[in-house]
Amino acid sequence: MENTIKKYEELRKKIKAYRFANFLASWDSTTEAPKGCFENRSVQIGVLSEELYKLQTGDEMTTAVEELYKNRNQLDEVLKHEIIVAKEAIEKLKKVPVNEYVEFMSLLSKSEHIWAQAKNKSDFQMFQPILEKIIEFEKKYIKYIEKDDLKGYDVLLDEFEKGYTTKEYDQFFDALKRDLVPFVKNIVTKKLQFNQDFTKQIFPKEQQKEFVQYLADVLCFNKYYGIIKESEHPFTTNFGTTDVRFTVHYYEDMFISSIFSGIHELGHALYEQQINPELDQTFSGGGGSMALHESQSRFYENIIGRSYEFWKVHYPQLKKTFKRELRGISLDDFYKYINQSEASLIRTEADELTYPIHIMIRYDIERAIFNDKIEIKDLPKVWNEKIKEYLGIDVPDDKNGVLQDVHWAVGSFGYFPTYALGSAYAVQIYNRMNKKFNVLRSLKAKDTKKINDWLKENLHKHGKTKYPKELFKMVAKENFNPQYYIDYLIDKYSKLYNI
Amino acid sequence: MENTIKKYEELRKKIKAYRFANFLASWDSTTEAPKGCFENRSVQIGVLSEELYKLQTGDEMTTAVEELYKNRNQLDEVLKHEIIVAKEAIEKLKKVPVNEYVEFMSLLSKSEHIWAQAKNKSDFQMFQPILEKIIEFEKKYIKYIEKDDLKGYDVLLDEFEKGYTTKEYDQFFDALKRDLVPFVKNIVTKKLQFNQDFTKQIFPKEQQKEFVQYLADVLCFNKYYGIIKESEHPFTTNFGTTDVRFTVHYYEDMFISSIFSGIHELGHALYEQQINPELDQTFSGGGGSMALHESQSRFYENIIGRSYEFWKVHYPQLKKTFKRELRGISLDDFYKYINQSEASLIRTEADELTYPIHIMIRYDIERAIFNDKIEIKDLPKVWNEKIKEYLGIDVPDDKNGVLQDVHWAVGSFGYFPTYALGSAYAVQIYNRMNKKFNVLRSLKAKDTKKINDWLKENLHKHGKTKYPKELFKMVAKENFNPQYYIDYLIDKYSKLYNI
Repeated sequence: MENTIKKYEELRKKIKAYRFANFLASWDSTTEAPKGCFENRSVQIGVLSEELYKLQTGDEMTTAVEELYKNRNQLDEVLKHEIIVAKEAIEKLKKVPVNEYVEFMSLLSKSEHIWAQAKNKSDFQMFQPILEKIIEFEKKYIKYIEKDDLKGYDVLLDEFEKGYTTKEYDQFFDALKRDLVPFVKNIVTKKLQFNQDFTKQIFPKEQQKEFVQYLADVLCFNKYYGIIKESEHPFTTNFGTTDVRFTVHYYEDMFISSIFSGIHELGHALYEQQINPELDQTFSGGGGSMALHESQSRFYENIIGRSYEFWKVHYPQLKKTFKRELRGISLDDFYKYINQSEASLIRTEADELTYPIHIMIRYDIERAIFNDKIEIKDLPKVWNEKIKEYLGIDVPDDKNGVLQDVHWAVGSFGYFPTYALGSAYAVQIYNRMNKKFNVLRSLKAKDTKKINDWLKENLHKHGKTKYPKELFKMVAKENFNPQYYIDYLIDKYSKLYNI
Repeated sequence: MENTIKKYEELRKKIKAYRFANFLASWDSTTEAPKGCFENRSVQIGVLSEELYKLQTGDEMTTAVEELYKNRNQLDEVLKHEIIVAKEAIEKLKKVPVNEYVEFMSLLSKSEHIWAQAKNKSDFQMFQPILEKIIEFEKKYIKYIEKDDLKGYDVLLDEFEKGYTTKEYDQFFDALKRDLVPFVKNIVTKKLQFNQDFTKQIFPKEQQKEFVQYLADVLCFNKYYGIIKESEHPFTTNFGTTDVRFTVHYYEDMFISSIFSGIHELGHALYEQQINPELDQTFSGGGGSMALHESQSRFYENIIGRSYEFWKVHYPQLKKTFKRELRGISLDDFYKYINQSEASLIRTEADELTYPIHIMIRYDIERAIFNDKIEIKDLPKVWNEKIKEYLGIDVPDDKNGVLQDVHWAVGSFGYFPTYALGSAYAVQIYNRMNKKFNVLRSLKAKDTKKINDWLKENLHKHGKTKYPKELFKMVAKENFNPQYYIDYLIDKYSKLYNI
């Protein structure tokens, strides 16, 4: 037993070193590698990924996990959970024929490129054949994996957020349909009145950078253990708690993009920085799940970052940074600007209120696909109808419709729902936090550390030492309930729009 | 045989992937990693380095190399040379007891830190005990490796520049002592007259960056296959020909530092970019040797970059970039400023003329150490005497004397001479180039590509497919002869100082 633990720890250490190499390669590829290097680089990355795959799924690891699984009750809690999770992964892997797995990976390696071309030409038919193949594979995969209590689409949903299946998501999205959709339909017909002079200004990049640094300090991002850089699409990545990195993109004609994507990534980054550092040498570090991670980014971005109280204390600094650009613009103008809601086509640009509607539509479509209730060739039609139905607008082309997101092209079915779930988690966690202390009062007192500390203690530090449902219950002290989210949105937007 | 080649190529591919991981980790560590990450990071790097070491020296590789070595005459020229070099390395490795090797590595892992502290306190005695141990190891190492035609210090010299031993270096440095030293002693007593108003100006970093980009374009650095970044100490690194990176440090109170360290690194970078890309998947890519690499950086930095002709066409751009700072400063003023010579204490800041004297002194001392003609405790005394003798100045403290360079602290004895050899190579190559076309005329015609092309054809493209001596002879069409270098320096500085 001692020896098996030692063996397991050795393998884990090795696997972590390969993951570190992958982490760096992908960070470098995304942020600065010269464009011409990728043909050669793919050879090196291929070798390293293969080594990693072999280590992770090889006999040595499998044997160690099986052995430890048998004796799991003798392990400490962290290792026990780690082994249970590893055992599940191995079981799954065993069920899928290797040749089919390889074939699927090879298909996926081509599909993103085809999707990008199709999107560029706004031509769904270009993408349709490969999408059909991907879905065919997914359906076969489901057949291999499914068991009595987990069937069809649920297999995929459960992979992205363990324990969440159509049972939970139906309840969630049904509540949205029932309570939120009518409210949204009303709101998006209205216009907020405010001084919009500044929205056409050019906001110099250097000052935007400066302000993102300011925000990082305000939210207590630890720069000794992290860096901020620039990239085409903002993202957060990390290796353990001592190396956490996020990127921002700066648009001079859309300065709030860097502010809110910055705060969003800061949410992800703070989560990673606040995990118990003792987990750094294990597989149990890192955020608890997709939705839990998204809950933290959305919490900071929307609940904190789009609150009146936050800007009451930080708007003076913003005005100082953009003296010329924000001349004559009041806190009220700015607050309305960053919170106005409108029916729009693109998910990633949607505001806080309409965002979950975009996800709901994707969920409905994915559900229909895996229940064989839809033909792939009809996706654009179905998409456009749903956008019209729920948001009241016409989709001009596939680029702004069914082709906008990369997820399906890389085989990520079941991923979208975690985005909305994360937003809803955030509100419920916020609600719990408010029972312990007045969050908005902390913001007004510039005491964001109090908020971080609470999240660290109740969620962050635990990493992924438990399943998402358990982690959520630890922080929210009850099961997930979508009503908090709906109430929060209706309350916030009713006040804002005076209805 | 076919199978052995295949096996060898497989191992080589794997080794190259690990080197890629090391390349990225070290690039990241030096240029941007958060300060707090290194404790954890050292674990991952430890694992990756160990894997690399095992692959490089393991039985599989050794067997493949031995097998191919036996049949080397059936291999193509590139692979044949690669195998001969690999066989030599294996033979050497076999001669050193593993435990001693490990002990030495462990010693070296501590010594740089101790040196840095000693340097900081300017206290040689702090560094002396570990330096003595390092030298003891080096001497033992020599005993293991030496053979009839390679003894003592020559073992170390030959490792840094294959084929160059005290025979060649004595001849080189004796010539410097005889012909150059008296000239230098005379020059450093004189002062060039020029308008120095600008030397105290502040040159904004952003404009310096812009100008380094301009220089990179002027020298045809291919940005599709390379990047330029900032770091504390400028350096060049690369992975194959398609990913070549160099860094610059910007001092606002010393703007020529970024210009000349920039051109210096560009020399290294161009060498790497111009190697035959077919060598990317082999071990035969990369520059031919330490001194050959240095010859290219020195060629671009000094022969091109400090020439009147170069600045005749590019000084207008410099004045445009620093309109305010260079107001009223003529090309002549600038040319004199970048070429003035003076006796100074620090090697890395020495000018083109006095630089080889600094190397000569180190060579003399290293030679004495390995001939047991000097006690380590006397190093500061000997150092200071030699600086006084050859440069006529007093060394105020060890920080500015014997402790200034890191090389000995990391066990790199025999390295220094390659710096001076590189400078001398550069001049002899330049001489050969001038027989083919008028180099300065090309500069005046802004045709730097012609120079790059010639170097590519005659040196760069060959990578390290041959030993340094052969490569040098291919480009210079004769053996190394230090007289070119001495004549060039005396000629250039006689004209400059009007003597």
